[in-house]
Amino acid sequence: MAQNNSPLRIDLNADLGETTAGNPVSDDAAMAKIVSSANVACGFHAGDPHAISQTIAAAQANQVTVGAHVGYNDIAGFGRRFIDYAPAELADETLYQIGALEALCKSRGTSVRYVKPHGALYNTIVHHEQQARAVIDGIKAFGDLPVMLLPGAYAAEYATSQGLRVIQEVFADRAYNPDGTLVSRREEGAVIHDPSVVAERVLRMATSGEIEAIDGSVLTLEAESVCVHGDSPGAVDMAAEIKNTLESNGVQVGSFL
Amino acid sequence: MAQNNSPLRIDLNADLGETTAGNPVSDDAAMAKIVSSANVACGFHAGDPHAISQTIAAAQANQVTVGAHVGYNDIAGFGRRFIDYAPAELADETLYQIGALEALCKSRGTSVRYVKPHGALYNTIVHHEQQARAVIDGIKAFGDLPVMLLPGAYAAEYATSQGLRVIQEVFADRAYNPDGTLVSRREEGAVIHDPSVVAERVLRMATSGEIEAIDGSVLTLEAESVCVHGDSPGAVDMAAEIKNTLESNGVQVGSFL
Amino acid sequence: MAQNNSPLRIDLNADLGETTAGNPVSDDAAMAKIVSSANVACGFHAGDPHAISQTIAAAQANQVTVGAHVGYNDIAGFGRRFIDYAPAELADETLYQIGALEALCKSRGTSVRYVKPHGALYNTIVHHEQQARAVIDGIKAFGDLPVMLLPGAYAAEYATSQGLRVIQEVFADRAYNPDGTLVSRREEGAVIHDPSVVAERVLRMATSGEIEAIDGSVLTLEAESVCVHGDSPGAVDMAAEIKNTLESNGVQVGSFL
Amino acid sequence: MAQNNSPLRIDLNADLGETTAGNPVSDDAAMAKIVSSANVACGFHAGDPHAISQTIAAAQANQVTVGAHVGYNDIAGFGRRFIDYAPAELADETLYQIGALEALCKSRGTSVRYVKPHGALYNTIVHHEQQARAVIDGIKAFGDLPVMLLPGAYAAEYATSQGLRVIQEVFADRAYNPDGTLVSRREEGAVIHDPSVVAERVLRMATSGEIEAIDGSVLTLEAESVCVHGDSPGAVDMAAEIKNTLESNGVQVGSFL
Repeated sequence: MAQNNSPLRIDLNADLGETTAGNPVSDDAAMAKIVSSANVACGFHAGDPHAISQTIAAAQANQVTVGAHVGYNDIAGFGRRFIDYAPAELADETLYQIGALEALCKSRGTSVRYVKPHGALYNTIVHHEQQARAVIDGIKAFGDLPVMLLPGAYAAEYATSQGLRVIQEVFADRAYNPDGTLVSRREEGAVIHDPSVVAERVLRMATSGEIEAIDGSVLTLEAESVCVHGDSPGAVDMAAEIKNTLESNGVQVGSFL
Repeated sequence: MAQNNSPLRIDLNADLGETTAGNPVSDDAAMAKIVSSANVACGFHAGDPHAISQTIAAAQANQVTVGAHVGYNDIAGFGRRFIDYAPAELADETLYQIGALEALCKSRGTSVRYVKPHGALYNTIVHHEQQARAVIDGIKAFGDLPVMLLPGAYAAEYATSQGLRVIQEVFADRAYNPDGTLVSRREEGAVIHDPSVVAERVLRMATSGEIEAIDGSVLTLEAESVCVHGDSPGAVDMAAEIKNTLESNGVQVGSFL
Repeated sequence: MAQNNSPLRIDLNADLGETTAGNPVSDDAAMAKIVSSANVACGFHAGDPHAISQTIAAAQANQVTVGAHVGYNDIAGFGRRFIDYAPAELADETLYQIGALEALCKSRGTSVRYVKPHGALYNTIVHHEQQARAVIDGIKAFGDLPVMLLPGAYAAEYATSQGLRVIQEVFADRAYNPDGTLVSRREEGAVIHDPSVVAERVLRMATSGEIEAIDGSVLTLEAESVCVHGDSPGAVDMAAEIKNTLESNGVQVGSFL
Repeated sequence: MAQNNSPLRIDLNADLGETTAGNPVSDDAAMAKIVSSANVACGFHAGDPHAISQTIAAAQANQVTVGAHVGYNDIAGFGRRFIDYAPAELADETLYQIGALEALCKSRGTSVRYVKPHGALYNTIVHHEQQARAVIDGIKAFGDLPVMLLPGAYAAEYATSQGLRVIQEVFADRAYNPDGTLVSRREEGAVIHDPSVVAERVLRMATSGEIEAIDGSVLTLEAESVCVHGDSPGAVDMAAEIKNTLESNGVQVGSFL
């Protein structure tokens, strides 16, 4: 967003590869036809190796960039609960997950091109400095991969200081507070369900960098990617509508790479 | 064993890196000073990423070759129970584990140099053709790594047919049947506990390729490595005695690579 | 089925409580309004304690009998893979699961009224005598609960010899071989998808004890319960159609207790 | 401690039943001969059902009272890491664990007589009110069992308000701050290793209720139980020395029940 090159271009990312025990939580084959980046689960918060591999194949078949969606080691909690890790453990668990996904990618002729922390880990490293440094150190130990993060996260600041590229993202269907933070899911209006409203918001972000906050004020956010959800009923339709709205208004959907 | 080059040389391997939840099952720092090859757990049957990384560091500091000790995804059973996997799942789980370990190795300046299946998986692929092919296919998907196996295993035959080098191993403290199979642990005399007896048996294997079976007959086995245990009281002492006996009789302990 | 009392009465059972990590695999609230018995997951193959408790509450609110759906300790495989347990371990794991579910039931004012083994365990104890005895012994250690099993299973024979009541069940949407076994899911025609065909088959079973095998021959099966699925799209509709067909033909749906 | 009845009597408790995947972390058979109360793992932070059952049998054979040692669902972290559970989930996980242990106890002819939270959960509910209430509510949902807690814990206050008996405990080998809190393990002198020093401290606690803090000041603590460790080398010897010192000074070791 707010880019000078023409035509306008924005990345759409979604969480895929979260099939555990044969029970899929998203339609990865359909989503891979829409998004430009796939945050692929690495087995710690969700994802069986074989299901992950099939998602990678779907991504590869559709020229979708694969990122490592690293999470807490908590299948039971789907990575949505904060866990008080020792930093050295968290760094090595991050490294472990990227390495595992990289092997699955290589066998499909592709590779891990970025990292996005998942769920509670994503939210924790906005402010938890020890865990933020551990995650970034774990990524650095693997290689200089870009990291997808919430704008303003401490992890983004630290990643930059370590020489990693940071990809800032916005959330397609989430309401924002006037200070640029997300409205908590516990509050009313936190999630926007109307696909056409969501699509128009994404179009505005992509063309002007602006987003209307929940109080009606207008925020300006620097973001290179838009997160769309794959794991709810209607997710595929909403993602498709977002993409169509962007493209029919001259905004290309493509990876940030 | 039964090698023509002088001086005689044999590999000693042990299972390391199996610390789960902070509870070690072997003294990896001590064992790394004795063995030439470390079968390092990959987190599926045992092993936390950070503990694994520390074991890799100990191996690296002692010029010990690191192998991926891949197992069934069964922390609760320590990988000692047969699980009836679909082959495609087993192949991708094998690949996943090697990739995860490789990332931890690279961050320590080394890499995975061979693969040894663990526990029930090791025993299953002696005869279970589908699982044997799945494991070997998973290894091949990662790269052309040598595979450490029981002499006569179907997996060895298939690995060879796929162009992988097979490292045959013998077990230092296990009794053998006249046909070259191991005496079942459920039978008396299956495990030899006297370190000096074990050391003499290993010396004989290393110098002549011979091993006395439980009925007194003499077997000739081709093996490039001897497995010593690290996970019982007295394990370190027995491993040290084996090494000393070998070296004081002119047999060098060193990796098969 | 083939009962002498009037009116005719048959039990409908379904697998519920399998929500893991917040991701439901069936619509338990809807299914609880249809079935008379709920095989409730116990956390080993699926099910978080809190989600299980909510399913128990839904069962309780609809006078649905709760059974313990015990399985292998294999969340990653959803209990669908054979695991080669030591019998003493399997017995205690069975007991553990029933006890855990009983506590959740008691807090909701109900209790575990029967046991049904799940997935690979259910199929294994048709013929695997050691595991069959282990499961039945585990149940006996808890109390004299009825056990729901496949007609002809070795486990049924052993359970009867131990004084446990056996509930035989048929599968609503599965094709049968002429010998009364299920047509393997790998073969064509194994699963019947047309709700009206399924409903008619269930009605015939309930009224006459007859079921047409895949070759057109007619089997007579003694069964007190019919298993309907809750975990596929259209599952609720099919279960509702089965129930409606039964009731509009004078067959009451009710627990076997 | 500080009891008026004669002879003086104190409970010794230890964490047992933590064998996971066949790898024991304590010598439960030996410890069961020494302690009067066993905090038996329930499978969430450690413990296989069959190993747990064997520990219960050892406790039963030695008239040791069995308590449910409930923990976070985190085998990988041995329950030593805080997890940010939703309260309703934590309550049902607590209930689940007690129920599972109760079934194992009943099959051995005994029952769960108290509950002690483990590791990070124990420490968390000293101050985390939501989790404290969830744990106590989970216990209440099972029944009115006594709860073993750190003196001064918020959970103790809430348990009392709910009508549960609270058993306060002191730690045999831990140094105390002048305010009665434990010296953090990260600080020097936090753990006392000399068995005779430990035994003398326990004797003083048991006879006078006094304990010397790390700065030399004297604390008075009300405690009915002393926690001894079973999971370190020398643990059995230290526990035995504590017991001998108590008994040879006229203090009886026995359950608080």
